[in-house]
This record gives sequence, structure tokens and C-alpha cells, in this order.
Amino acid sequence: MPDPLRLGLAGLGTVGIGVVKIVQRHAALIAARAGRPVQIVAVSARDRTRTRSADISAYAWEDDPVRLAARPDVDVFVEVMGGSDGPAKAATEVAIAAGKDVVTANKALLSHHGQALALAAEARGRTIRFEAAVAGGIPVIKALTEGLAGNAVRRVLGVMNGSCNYILTRMETAGLPYATVFEEARGLGYLEADPTLDVGGIDAGHKLALLAAVAFGTRVHFEQVAIEGIERVSIEDIRHAGDMGFRIKLLGVAQMTGRGLEQRMAPCLVPADSPLGQLPGGTNMVVIEGDPVGQIVLRGPGAGEGATASAVMGDVIDLARGIRLPVFGQPAAALANPPPAVLAAPAPYYLRLALIDKPGALAKVAAALGDAGVSIDRMRQYGHAAPEAPVLIVTHKTTRDALDHAIAAFATSGVVVGEPVALRIEAV
Amino acid sequence: MPDPLRLGLAGLGTVGIGVVKIVQRHAALIAARAGRPVQIVAVSARDRTRTRSADISAYAWEDDPVRLAARPDVDVFVEVMGGSDGPAKAATEVAIAAGKDVVTANKALLSHHGQALALAAEARGRTIRFEAAVAGGIPVIKALTEGLAGNAVRRVLGVMNGSCNYILTRMETAGLPYATVFEEARGLGYLEADPTLDVGGIDAGHKLALLAAVAFGTRVHFEQVAIEGIERVSIEDIRHAGDMGFRIKLLGVAQMTGRGLEQRMAPCLVPADSPLGQLPGGTNMVVIEGDPVGQIVLRGPGAGEGATASAVMGDVIDLARGIRLPVFGQPAAALANPPPAVLAAPAPYYLRLALIDKPGALAKVAAALGDAGVSIDRMRQYGHAAPEAPVLIVTHKTTRDALDHAIAAFATSGVVVGEPVALRIEAV
Repeated sequence: MPDPLRLGLAGLGTVGIGVVKIVQRHAALIAARAGRPVQIVAVSARDRTRTRSADISAYAWEDDPVRLAARPDVDVFVEVMGGSDGPAKAATEVAIAAGKDVVTANKALLSHHGQALALAAEARGRTIRFEAAVAGGIPVIKALTEGLAGNAVRRVLGVMNGSCNYILTRMETAGLPYATVFEEARGLGYLEADPTLDVGGIDAGHKLALLAAVAFGTRVHFEQVAIEGIERVSIEDIRHAGDMGFRIKLLGVAQMTGRGLEQRMAPCLVPADSPLGQLPGGTNMVVIEGDPVGQIVLRGPGAGEGATASAVMGDVIDLARGIRLPVFGQPAAALANPPPAVLAAPAPYYLRLALIDKPGALAKVAAALGDAGVSIDRMRQYGHAAPEAPVLIVTHKTTRDALDHAIAAFATSGVVVGEPVALRIEAV
Repeated sequence: MPDPLRLGLAGLGTVGIGVVKIVQRHAALIAARAGRPVQIVAVSARDRTRTRSADISAYAWEDDPVRLAARPDVDVFVEVMGGSDGPAKAATEVAIAAGKDVVTANKALLSHHGQALALAAEARGRTIRFEAAVAGGIPVIKALTEGLAGNAVRRVLGVMNGSCNYILTRMETAGLPYATVFEEARGLGYLEADPTLDVGGIDAGHKLALLAAVAFGTRVHFEQVAIEGIERVSIEDIRHAGDMGFRIKLLGVAQMTGRGLEQRMAPCLVPADSPLGQLPGGTNMVVIEGDPVGQIVLRGPGAGEGATASAVMGDVIDLARGIRLPVFGQPAAALANPPPAVLAAPAPYYLRLALIDKPGALAKVAAALGDAGVSIDRMRQYGHAAPEAPVLIVTHKTTRDALDHAIAAFATSGVVVGEPVALRIEAV
């Protein structure tokens, strides 16, 4: 049997403990598939004394992940601490400088510093693997960089934050308002310590930026992702959408257009009977549209101990087998760097606004849309108790620019109260 | 730029022409991802003069695929001719003997001769890749052997024959009988020249045998797959199933049990609202249940020029990158060889039979089931014009053995006409 592959594991939270368990429980299986044993030799975490659900007593302990990353007995540095900067970044840089490969679940780190880290790793003939950073247990990075490598990707889209999908699904099925379900999700531990990372779309935006890089062979640019969270989606929006045969999902879409790379993460309406529309609870889904393959749909658990640890181990086993591809599938120095093309592609939109109930109000709204070049597919005014009438509009295909012009005109029309909700209807 | 990877392409049917087109259209993209150019140097097919939808004039021509396989200027032999024996097998053996890697879409060849071919290739330090042989454009072999390699697979199941799924879906949506839709599908060119390969479940059985081998690290044993086709599924079965919230799919299931490896391909009832139940038309789906990942669902086009060529090129690009794993993910000599355990796991069953309309008939059927230890969950007798009454039974969980005992007793009961239809209800 060849030499074992030796892991240094930084982070013993949910994912780290999941990795410990899988290395221990499936040692024989992993050795058979990898062609050599995979061992954890050293670990680090914030608190050595904390009670953990796996036995880590056989591993060397480091208080400092940077020291762990530099250990000469570590072949692969496994970083599952999280955080875009600070110790995770420092330790990863040290591991690369010390000639180690890195496996990480850290989407924040890579979406902010991926290009620099990839250049550093590839300059030393090493790589960084990050299957666990995107869509949990779904092997989507591998699918894009390897299995579907013969395809020109046209579009990649998906639901990549299970907590948001849980909240939206639960709002619909239980008929509860956003605030109630948000508190429920927080109580269940479904949300990050800073929940705006989830409901603000930032965590999912990190994942989309990584997905776009491997799908299109482009440099990762998280700052070019147009992000909207789910905080303004109301139970009424969910009901109206349902009436028209749609569901609302926090959807990430990356698409190469004639004007550049479009990356957006926002609540969208998708057909209720599409695979994305039918996705329940905390599950993730990624849809890949490629030439010549057509549409490939991947679905699975987006988070949790087992799913994320499975993704980490897939990467570790590849390294044990001696497979070492460039970080983003192509050498980082050769990645394209197209301009951002935010919301270039036209689409129909769902628009909900509160109208002052007086004669001619609806006409003013219709006129503002017409002046902006936005044509109306359907419009409904609902019965109401409040002084404002809820009005629902579905537009024909339009650009976001044109729609924003109309919304700006609403503000000065004197008949629209507050900020309208505008959600794109995505064809899938 | 390093040396190109040189392909010899045997077969210029739908898949072969798809490969030619993708190599030509995406040459730059493929070179960027593979790190080197990929070229076709020589081709072979039955008829040189046939008009084709791609320009093959730049490639050397061989009338005999065996000569193509032996050419010194070929690095990878791409076999997309088909057939379990004959020229495909001879040429593949020659390619391996000549020290070439092989990429194939040939499920019949590998499900019959996979172990011997893998041993031969691995003895020479070469490999055989077959992503295109299973589930068309879905990168499922890669997902099982690499992305999910850290998992102990519990069960793998799926819809892997698009033509059968088309027929069953069309029967349901158009309300047409099997024979009509079968002729329709044949007219549309959806069926193999010998259609029993499709509707008899043999093609899908080949795919299941390959999937089981990579999922469980076992030798491929197509002859151990219990196969039933869709020929006896009636429009009434589809309607009855629908009434109870199920859809009928030709479902392949491979499962490791305490008594060995269970492999079966048969029409089954699956919940209508499950991903498998919702799968339309010619699409394929594979569901992987692993520890610790949980459930991963992969969906995509199961056949056709683009989908299959995409899978071939994924394999080719891996070889161009220097990635050369064992054929079935682990060395063929080390694959396990568990006994077959046909239908070991108990399940509820759907049973439709024709009952002679006389007093006590239903009681005799119920007694036969009770005597065999099969308990009844639901039973319905339908109104009828014919002398026989259609009776529908859903059993509680039972073994196939017990059910077969009951069915044998029906035959001698004097009240059941013809052969009952028995379909497993699969939990997914």
C-alpha cells in the first residue's frame, strides 16, 4: 500500500466533525477508492476542551491554524473554519507557501480572494479544491470542470441557500409571514450567526460567484454579483405568484451575454411545476444549460455535517489519487475577465405596489409603465381594507433598466405608496 | 502548448457525428480546459459514402475499426459503434493491447465483458471510460467514482431508458394504450432496431449493471439483473396508480443487502410528487443514496447526439489532462463479488387481476394472499362489461417470494383469469 495522504484539519465545527467521522467510519472504503489510506494527523479549533461528537484524541493539536498549515507532516490543509479574512486566509496562504494542497468549504474566502490564492497555489504546482463551498453535497464543481468540460455553458442557475428556501417554502405551506418564519428558522439554528448572510443573499452570492467562474472560465468577481435578499418577499407575493402558477425562490443566475457576464442573486418567480419550483425546504438545486448537452439538473442537501463532509472527502480522494487540476478548471492566469453585464437579458417581471385609492390612480401607473416602454401582460387590483389598494402587475419581457425607470416615475406620481416589489420571472 | 491528444473515432452514427461536431465547434474551449488540443486523426464506419451532417474529410479513413484501433497515431480509441460482441469488442481489445486508452458509449459491451476488458486495460496501465454508456449526458459515473467517493452507497436507482419513459408518460397524458404509443415511438425513431432492447428493459439493465459496479465497488454482472419490461403495463394500471398518487416508471434499483447485491429493472410505482414521479418524457434521472451525503438527484437528457457526445468528451478531456482512474473506480482485480440477492428487500406491491364474477371469488383471492403471508392494504373491484371483473390490490410490505406464492395459488383457484400484473411500489 502506498504512503497515506495526511490531512491537517482546521475547524472542528459541524463540517470538521463530519470530516473526522467519515475518515474514521469509511477508512477502508476510502483507501480502496483512493488507492492509499487517508489519515488526519493534526487538527485545530478555537476551543480544545469543548465536548465533541467524535474522538479526536489520536490527532496532534494546534491552537493556531497557521501553525497547523505549516506542519511538515501535513500533505493537504483542510480548511473548514470559515470567514473571508483573518485566520482562514492567513492559514491558507501559509499552507500554499509551504507547498500543500488545500481543500476548503470556505465560499467567503474564495469568492473574495480566489484569484490571488489560485495564482499562488498554481505557481507552486499546487491546487485548492472547493466542492464543499458550493451547494453542499452536490458535486457540481466537478460536474462543471470535468464531466461537462466539453460544453460551452450558456447559463447556470440554482437555489443555493437552503435556509432561504426553507423560509420561503414554510411561508407558503404554513401561510405564515416572513418575520414569524425568520424567527422560527433562527430558533432552529438554520441561520448564520449574522442572518443577513443568509436572508440577504450574500452567502448564496458567494456560491454563485464561484459557480460562474468554473462555468465560464472567468475570474471570480463576487463584487459584480447583483444581490437582493428575501426580506421584502411577503406572504401575499407568495400567494399571488402561486395563483399564477409560480413559486418564489431565491435564485442565482449566471449567464454569458453579448455584453458581458451577468451574475445575479435575487428572489424570482419560477414555474411551480419546474424542477426548481418543486424544490422543497432546505434542499439545493443547480441547473446547468450547456451546448451540446442541454439541461442538467443536480439536486441534493445544501448543508449539514454529512453533505458538506462528503464534498470535502471527494476533493481529498482526488488529491490522494494524484489528480490536481487548476483551481477553477483552467489556469488562473488564463481566466477570462469579461465586464459585468448586470440584468442585460430582458424578462417578464412581477410587480406589486400599493396604490392610493382615488380615480385615475391606476391610469397613472399604467402610463408610467408605458412611458418607460414596459408593456403590461396582466394587472389585478385586489379588494382591501387599508387606504391603499394592492395592485399586482405582470409585465411582458422588459429590461430591468426600463422597469427601474417606471418605478422611479411611480415615486413622483403621487399615487404609489412606498417602494414597489419587483421580482423577475425566470424561464427555466 | 503540449502535444495534442489524438482520437481514433469508430462509429459515425448519431453519437459519433456528435463527437465530431463538438471537437470541431469547441476546439478552443476544449484545449483551454484540457490543457492541450484534442484532435480526431482517423475515423471508421460501415459506409464511407453516406452523407453526414459534419465534415469528416480531414480525417484518415479506416474501413475496419480494428485497424483504426491499432493505428500508431491514435492515443485514445473512441468506440461509439455499439454491440456487445463483434467488431466493437475486437477493436476495443486491439486498442487495449496496443496500449491505448478507450472511451466508449457501449453499455452492451461493458455490461457483458467489462471485467475482462478492465483487467486487460489495467494490466497495461490504461483505462476504459464509459460515462456515455449510462444516463446520456448526466455525469453520473464521475459523481459516483469521484465526487461522492467518500460515501458508502446504500442504494442507487433511476430511470435510464428515455424511450420507455416517453412511452409511459405519453400513455398517461394522451390516454392511449401501450400498443398505439409503442408504434408511435417506433415511427418517431425513438426505439432501437430491436425494440425489445428498450421496452424489454435490457438496455436499461445494461446501464444498471454498470452503475451498480461503480456504486458498490463490485464486478459487473448484467446476468444477475432481474429484468422485466414495460410491455404488460396497461393504460388501466397507469390510471389506477394515478388515482392512488403514484406514477409508473421503468425503474432500475441496485441495493446492497445483508444477503448480497440486489439489481432489478422493472416497472414500479413511485410517488407522483417525487422527483422520479415527476420526470417527463425522454429524460433520465439517477438517485444516489449515500452515507453520509444523503440523497443526490441527477437529471438530464438520456440520449441523443449532444448529450452522449458531451459525456464522451468529458471522458476524453480527463484523459487529455492525464487523469487515468481504474475503469470501475477501483482496480478491477480488487472488485468485490457478492452473491446476487434478487428482490430481497420487502416492499408494498400493486396487483391487478381479472376475477371471474361469481360469489366467493374475491374471498378466494384474499385467502390465497393470506395463506402466503401477504396482507392487504387496499382492495378495489371495478364495475365492468367483460365477464371478468378487474380487481386492484395494494399489499402491505411483503417479499416478492411471498407474493409469487400467492400468484401461483391464484392460478389454481379457478377464479383468476390470466396472469396478474404485479408491480412493486418503490419508496423514494
